[in-house]
Amino acid sequence: MEDNHINMQSHSCDPDRPAHPGIFPTREAGKSDHQPGGSSVDFPVSVVLPAGGTGERTGLQTPKQFCSFLGRPLISYTIQAFERVSWIQSIVVVVAKENMDLMTDIVQRFQHKKVRAVPGGSTRHRSICNGVRALGDAEEERPKVVIIHDAVRPFVDEDLLYKIAMAAEEQGCSESDFEFGTECLHLALQYCGTTAKLIQGPPTLWKVTYKRDLAAAESIIKETLSRSACVITGGSEQAVTLADALQKAVGALDMELDVIPDLMGENAGYLLKEWNFIQVSVNRSCLSEVEAVLKDLEAANRALLHPLVVIWVHLSGSDELSVSGRGVEPAAIMDLASAAKLRNILLYGIQLRQTKDTERWERSVLRVAEITSALIRERSPALVGQLLQA
Amino acid sequence: MEDNHINMQSHSCDPDRPAHPGIFPTREAGKSDHQPGGSSVDFPVSVVLPAGGTGERTGLQTPKQFCSFLGRPLISYTIQAFERVSWIQSIVVVVAKENMDLMTDIVQRFQHKKVRAVPGGSTRHRSICNGVRALGDAEEERPKVVIIHDAVRPFVDEDLLYKIAMAAEEQGCSESDFEFGTECLHLALQYCGTTAKLIQGPPTLWKVTYKRDLAAAESIIKETLSRSACVITGGSEQAVTLADALQKAVGALDMELDVIPDLMGENAGYLLKEWNFIQVSVNRSCLSEVEAVLKDLEAANRALLHPLVVIWVHLSGSDELSVSGRGVEPAAIMDLASAAKLRNILLYGIQLRQTKDTERWERSVLRVAEITSALIRERSPALVGQLLQA
Repeated sequence: MEDNHINMQSHSCDPDRPAHPGIFPTREAGKSDHQPGGSSVDFPVSVVLPAGGTGERTGLQTPKQFCSFLGRPLISYTIQAFERVSWIQSIVVVVAKENMDLMTDIVQRFQHKKVRAVPGGSTRHRSICNGVRALGDAEEERPKVVIIHDAVRPFVDEDLLYKIAMAAEEQGCSESDFEFGTECLHLALQYCGTTAKLIQGPPTLWKVTYKRDLAAAESIIKETLSRSACVITGGSEQAVTLADALQKAVGALDMELDVIPDLMGENAGYLLKEWNFIQVSVNRSCLSEVEAVLKDLEAANRALLHPLVVIWVHLSGSDELSVSGRGVEPAAIMDLASAAKLRNILLYGIQLRQTKDTERWERSVLRVAEITSALIRERSPALVGQLLQA
Repeated sequence: MEDNHINMQSHSCDPDRPAHPGIFPTREAGKSDHQPGGSSVDFPVSVVLPAGGTGERTGLQTPKQFCSFLGRPLISYTIQAFERVSWIQSIVVVVAKENMDLMTDIVQRFQHKKVRAVPGGSTRHRSICNGVRALGDAEEERPKVVIIHDAVRPFVDEDLLYKIAMAAEEQGCSESDFEFGTECLHLALQYCGTTAKLIQGPPTLWKVTYKRDLAAAESIIKETLSRSACVITGGSEQAVTLADALQKAVGALDMELDVIPDLMGENAGYLLKEWNFIQVSVNRSCLSEVEAVLKDLEAANRALLHPLVVIWVHLSGSDELSVSGRGVEPAAIMDLASAAKLRNILLYGIQLRQTKDTERWERSVLRVAEITSALIRERSPALVGQLLQA
């Protein structure tokens, strides 16, 4: 085999700003429109993910690559980070024999397309070798570059992969390119007959090792999903006024809002790139609007990889609440939310009352902003269907 | 000076089970009743915390020792970990000159008693030296052992400190005790004329270095505060039945509940050791019960160092809600919660309806358990005062 191996490790001490685990805006599922410098890799590249670890150091029963955040195991995040790169043709995950069924189930459940699982060997090195050999067996075009990447380093970004693939292809990776000879690379050379190069990765490539790293990884993913939201106003003047006020208030909480009248035409693009939606409703029988948003999101098949958040903000007339107590039957939104939760969409409700008392109105808007920000950041499944008061 | 220096560093690779940052049950504020093996240290011990870092590697504007979790800066957690140890007589925090005011404010705000801030020198080594010298100036008894500890390693437990203090006192710490000579230790010896010993710490002593470590530290603290809660039933049969069902349901979510009728007599001890309280109320005009709990907690001055969670669970008769819409006026609990929040007590409400339909009842109880667990784990200030439906 003449594959070029790239083995990425993180040694650097720079700030670890969170990478974007598969949340680049995509126009088509599985394809990325994010090509660094507009260029593309035009030779076949494959990836081997050794994932045979037993998770001893986390102190948990589940090996860390199979630990879940936001309902999805770590290994699936790592796979997704590679799968969304259009020019990566195939990914081989090497797992312990006893985890083959689990891995196959994960691949099916999260609809990973470019992935095959193969059983590992008795050592990490043999496992990597098995993975590389499996690439040779496949029907697809033989890769020119093979990237070997720790399965428990989920935060890989496309720019780095692009640079690595280009460097590997251009330089050819002779043996003299070894920077830090690791056992792993030498064994790859010795037993697989391939050449290898060790390249320094950024600190975002850090390895999930301890239990505290699982918490850190979850927090990075949550932060990444919580930077922005899309507010749908329906176009009414009252709703637009509220949305504009919310936009300012949420800005102070480090979140950006895009305000749009509906999800039609060009705005349909938000369905494919946004993880959080806020539907503002002004009239009373208005769960229909939020039902429509849920339907659109389901049609776009967007909630597979990350839970989506939909917040229904109900602005009632100043006398409406006092007449009926709540305005909207809590059971209705709870039922809708319970159904949506099964499809990985988290629906919450917030009610506020129209008032001409400016101070009171501003306090309400600020509370909507704070509640919205907290719901989006925490993505708590236990609180879906609640109708919160602002 | 003849002080014995202990410099703790974490090099180990064991699982990092969270330590307990100052949440040992205490009978008197500032004193710990947790004496390993029942023994105590009977010689003067002091601590120097170098905290002059500028936080470059976190990528944040605020130096990491001043970053806040749950409303309190990291340095205060580290101070607290030492302060709660009865036999530690004084703590000197060494900070950059420009942060002296900030540090003084932190010491006052969180009522740290044994702490003095001194300005650092031009290097870390000079700063440590300043800290040690400041101990010599003080009026209190001259320490026999000085522990030098990184301010950004908040998770120190008393057992380790006890062992270290005893080892330092018994062995005398001659120069030959150096295990890993670090520049820091040699400089301490050279310029301060003291002897030093480097002791390996557990991985829980890990250093908060990157932004992701801040998230990990917050998650460890939240987990530590969320292991148990105290349910106050008032003694009524319906409330006790609900509390027992909750106890089982919450057990499946890795949380333990103690069920008590009230906070009188021996049960008053819970006010001093528990971070989470659930008040079950069966009648309608029942905010008075939760008001009493809030008063007791304020009197015990418990919410200074960690936010307390109080959840009011309102069990209404099967026909009560349908008559009045909600049973309890939402504005009343919101007002109570807003006032409590100013004192670092987070109050939430959960309503459920009595029913003879067993399946429905069990679903409601499970939902109360899930909501309770989520509220306690997340400790979200934005959601206080909400009346959630189970």
